[in-house]
Amino acid sequence: MSINGKSLKNIPWQDKPLGCNSVIWRHKGNPIIVWNPTPKTARIYNSSVVPWNSGFAGIFRADHKDGKAQIHVGFSSDGVNWNIEDEPIVWHDEDGNLYQPNYSYDPRIVELEGIYYIVWCTDFGGASLGLGVTKNFKQFTRLENPFIPFNRNGVLFPRKVNGKYLLLSRPSDTGHTPFGDIFISESPDLVHWGRHRRVMQKGGSGWWQSVKIGAGAVPIETTEGWLLFYHGVSGTCNGFVYSFGAAILDIEIPSKVLYRTRDYLLTPEMSYETSGFVPNVVFPCAALHDSETGRIAIYYGAADTYSALAYAKEDELINFIKSNSELLPGDAEEYR
Amino acid sequence: MSINGKSLKNIPWQDKPLGCNSVIWRHKGNPIIVWNPTPKTARIYNSSVVPWNSGFAGIFRADHKDGKAQIHVGFSSDGVNWNIEDEPIVWHDEDGNLYQPNYSYDPRIVELEGIYYIVWCTDFGGASLGLGVTKNFKQFTRLENPFIPFNRNGVLFPRKVNGKYLLLSRPSDTGHTPFGDIFISESPDLVHWGRHRRVMQKGGSGWWQSVKIGAGAVPIETTEGWLLFYHGVSGTCNGFVYSFGAAILDIEIPSKVLYRTRDYLLTPEMSYETSGFVPNVVFPCAALHDSETGRIAIYYGAADTYSALAYAKEDELINFIKSNSELLPGDAEEYR
Repeated sequence: MSINGKSLKNIPWQDKPLGCNSVIWRHKGNPIIVWNPTPKTARIYNSSVVPWNSGFAGIFRADHKDGKAQIHVGFSSDGVNWNIEDEPIVWHDEDGNLYQPNYSYDPRIVELEGIYYIVWCTDFGGASLGLGVTKNFKQFTRLENPFIPFNRNGVLFPRKVNGKYLLLSRPSDTGHTPFGDIFISESPDLVHWGRHRRVMQKGGSGWWQSVKIGAGAVPIETTEGWLLFYHGVSGTCNGFVYSFGAAILDIEIPSKVLYRTRDYLLTPEMSYETSGFVPNVVFPCAALHDSETGRIAIYYGAADTYSALAYAKEDELINFIKSNSELLPGDAEEYR
Repeated sequence: MSINGKSLKNIPWQDKPLGCNSVIWRHKGNPIIVWNPTPKTARIYNSSVVPWNSGFAGIFRADHKDGKAQIHVGFSSDGVNWNIEDEPIVWHDEDGNLYQPNYSYDPRIVELEGIYYIVWCTDFGGASLGLGVTKNFKQFTRLENPFIPFNRNGVLFPRKVNGKYLLLSRPSDTGHTPFGDIFISESPDLVHWGRHRRVMQKGGSGWWQSVKIGAGAVPIETTEGWLLFYHGVSGTCNGFVYSFGAAILDIEIPSKVLYRTRDYLLTPEMSYETSGFVPNVVFPCAALHDSETGRIAIYYGAADTYSALAYAKEDELINFIKSNSELLPGDAEEYR
């Protein structure tokens, strides 16, 4: 088994610590972004990165000191130490008119045919998905909102499948949404979306993903299928707990789930994960991967406060997912 | 001012009663469909009709005696007395495979270029819109679901506008949804939908539409704009109260509201509206209209139990809407 993608030897990496018996392990320098990272921002987390020039670029969720979330650009040579702009991204529409979101959060970015696409949660008379593009991380053009409200956790696939763009999303409500499954939609033009299918539903024999689930990082194409990190939410007497697991989706029909982790892969344990603005959150939004070595570096938000990194090896991870899988009704079908 | 449509002299009609000072008045024989209308069904309401041959055909919401809603076909020579089939519509997909909804409710039907399109609320891992077609009211073909969940109150326009199909809808949640605005989406092919705009939001200086609003009947094209009947919901200590009002939308850019009734046009007053399976509901789903006389016959569900009729004259109604209008922020814009 292998990753179908570019070689990216310079992604962040640390070997698995001796004695670690998990298929995912944390970066020793976590968190990589801490409180008050820029003059105007209080917390930067739930953010997404891509290779850019000889290093990396990222789109960051930045909660400002007025408490509202905006998205910012940042750059890094090593993927660990980031220079993040103090001002939010300025968006124009395709006619060149200013088209600034009221708020913006939890961005995902993907390169697709040389263009960088950003999907984030925006205000459209309620939480919904925003979609925009950049070619240079200086000018940003906002496209049509893919869906009517309410929606969060939009993740584009890194290539067209059967000639169509594919977008994962999690239908939602006006509030903190005590439910949620992952859907997929296709588009010929990034403007009109249809042929919607439900990919995976929340639930399972365990509890970690019993309240809701949502796509995390851009899917990684492997010989075994699309590797998707996704978050799962458990309910407690004091609120939600966000963990994450992974699924493998059919390459040609990604609405079909082949495997999905019965147990979480990572759950809040470290103090930067269990304590912060929102305690008990690990929330993956990006994964860099090197096809030559099978190394995967997962970027995740911690406690809605910090940015953190975790690592996995592709072969070990996929073997684990395949041998610790539990599907739910409808997961293996083209549920419509 | 006039209706841009066909002459339909045989639609149900009763002149306005002497002494009535409202622009909408009820049919004297209301309700036109009562409890247990067919052997298997308990309540038929929130249903939609079109001219068909020399009479009328309809798609009816029928709550069966197991308590679940399905949609049925019915026929009538006068639009008042209906023969409704005892069995639900059987749907096949475009490949001829059975594609039966788990549940179906609140259908709207419209003729568009000689084909009859039905939009209803269906189960797609949550309440969402189903879309299907028939040419003969015998075979029914289900198309792709236009949207991911959660959605209700889908209403197609009776013609393409600027070459695109237009669909009104009301984003929703998993339950009885204590919020809701009307959105519009366009499609080149009835499969992929985009360029979404919010048409109207709930609220206003009054309370009758303070909780949520939703499109009712297929919009009627007039020289003043698209005449849209819509429901508005008020919250009380004992649940929701559904009234209805009307709006006039820009002909070329129907996401722009030109006028909208500050007060409701009809609210539950009669015993068949205030009492039934769900008390205090009037819920319009269809409006037949005669371009020659300006007569409009509005079909509405009453108390989630009965089907009822009300009448209006187009010129009087539009004058009333224009002179008793109140817009909300964003209503007059292409809100995106």
